[in-house]
Amino acid sequence: MPELRKDPITGTWVIISEERKQRPRYYKIVVDQDLSSPENCPFCPGNEAMTPPETFALRPGHSPANAPGWDLRVVPNKFPALRIEGQLRKSGEGFYDRISGIGAHEVLIETPRHGQTWFDGDAAVVRNTLLAARSRVLDLKRDVRFKTIMVFKNFGPTAGATLSHSHTQLIALPVVPLRLQEEIEGARAHYAMKERCIFCDIIQYESESDRRLLLENEHFVALAPYAPRFSFELAVYPKRHAAEFESTPDPELDSLGRLLSDILGRVGRLLERPDYNLILHNAPCQNSVGEFFHWHVEFMPVLARVAGFEWGTGFYINPISPEESVQALKSV
Amino acid sequence: MPELRKDPITGTWVIISEERKQRPRYYKIVVDQDLSSPENCPFCPGNEAMTPPETFALRPGHSPANAPGWDLRVVPNKFPALRIEGQLRKSGEGFYDRISGIGAHEVLIETPRHGQTWFDGDAAVVRNTLLAARSRVLDLKRDVRFKTIMVFKNFGPTAGATLSHSHTQLIALPVVPLRLQEEIEGARAHYAMKERCIFCDIIQYESESDRRLLLENEHFVALAPYAPRFSFELAVYPKRHAAEFESTPDPELDSLGRLLSDILGRVGRLLERPDYNLILHNAPCQNSVGEFFHWHVEFMPVLARVAGFEWGTGFYINPISPEESVQALKSV
Repeated sequence: MPELRKDPITGTWVIISEERKQRPRYYKIVVDQDLSSPENCPFCPGNEAMTPPETFALRPGHSPANAPGWDLRVVPNKFPALRIEGQLRKSGEGFYDRISGIGAHEVLIETPRHGQTWFDGDAAVVRNTLLAARSRVLDLKRDVRFKTIMVFKNFGPTAGATLSHSHTQLIALPVVPLRLQEEIEGARAHYAMKERCIFCDIIQYESESDRRLLLENEHFVALAPYAPRFSFELAVYPKRHAAEFESTPDPELDSLGRLLSDILGRVGRLLERPDYNLILHNAPCQNSVGEFFHWHVEFMPVLARVAGFEWGTGFYINPISPEESVQALKSV
Repeated sequence: MPELRKDPITGTWVIISEERKQRPRYYKIVVDQDLSSPENCPFCPGNEAMTPPETFALRPGHSPANAPGWDLRVVPNKFPALRIEGQLRKSGEGFYDRISGIGAHEVLIETPRHGQTWFDGDAAVVRNTLLAARSRVLDLKRDVRFKTIMVFKNFGPTAGATLSHSHTQLIALPVVPLRLQEEIEGARAHYAMKERCIFCDIIQYESESDRRLLLENEHFVALAPYAPRFSFELAVYPKRHAAEFESTPDPELDSLGRLLSDILGRVGRLLERPDYNLILHNAPCQNSVGEFFHWHVEFMPVLARVAGFEWGTGFYINPISPEESVQALKSV
């Protein structure tokens, strides 16, 4: 059974999940390269039996579940970091805190086409992913054991993807992770001082100054943060204040799909289709953050390695200013 | 001129250092592989002119500065993330905060032997590095512009090292980074409740329970943290409570050198000499944390990639429990 453990000093939660390891000699994590060809790919049509049964699918022709004919499938992760079954037990060891590793870990298989990526300019694939994420978040939120549902996409091996077929992941957690807590506390402090959402303030300031504004459409704005940890890091915010991603109506998800597809197209052309991480920052499940938290999407291409300095300090060195990265992405 | 920028929501500091980038096409960071051969290595004896003039050296034969004959040299980083010259200026942009990129960035060239590593069991090299770090920290602390001095070692390309010749880095910062602040706040809260140092409590608990204790000698103890973010993550604490690494007397640095050398030897045998990061967690420069902060060394081999989930959340998935990693390292 996996276990969640809390660092007694910083409060960071860690999942100790021994079942996930494919234990080779020397404990090195080995990626099975065979999975990158369509015949052996568990995410390709015809190979539905290679995954656990689907929890959601877009099937325009109303084909039966777990058979071909889908545009998108959501399935439980075959090697989940957390388990959906079981009691939520909190216990201690000395002055340490732990929680049984209850949670959900699902994979959104975004497209039946093996080689397709978000660089290809097909906004429908991005929108389908957002629709599926919204549906799964709404469903999993009804489980009172879960405090946070994280949606994230790893593209490419240096970004942590072990399968090449385009997919997004979702993890439901029985705790609120430290970084989300920090964001919430920062936003709460700003609201206490100014009675305004800090994200709304950033959107307004950046829209007026235009130095770090990359793109906008009717509902969303894409910008480079003032203090980006990584070169070409970007953030996408809904213009309308909203704490919960899952409250977004269809036309706005459509709009976000088009904006993300435009961003990825530019990144792909400028940076030669880099590996990347894309993360949805959403309000916790049972929350009272509606007035001051503002859901958003974070995008980080993997261009340089993270070295010891960053790990030790939470302090980052970025060789490319956000003003320069936005300029370069605008011109491409 | 580099610049420090603060994220307005989380408080994370970022160095925007455009001078550091070797700008190739597409902004990809390219490592010049030629530097890994002794003839072109700026850290090899005979090539002293390839580095800026040394700020410290161990020269047992009293050879002249910036000439061969050294056991260890410290030189300013040729591509520093921060600049030592200039005024510390704090300013704003809208509601954002920034500081001029004042600081020091030095490299400790640990050994004249090009291929030597900390896996080789030569404790003198490790002790020399610790002696040099102590000397440089004591010197740089006298500069009142600096709030924190970070000492860290990246070994191998996946850990962020761009040169293969064994070295350690040091960065003096005009701010206290977020992760160190979090550690201090966690330790302060524990002290407020119990009037005890949380690190001393951890050392005592782990020494008694023995499940995560790897090694100890007269002055130091090495253990796996209860909630390690990474497989085979280790922490080394001085047994005697002390907030400041630079107060450590020679015999204790000797003792730490031997313990680290033993640890690295075990890690090298068990995990086939992995890339790793090693970070000194030290008290800030002008501090009032003496009663509750406890300096220590953090060790993290690079075995798996950090994926989007971890970036977005500050939440880690670790497939190997600390109990298992300690067991494996003890047996090797």
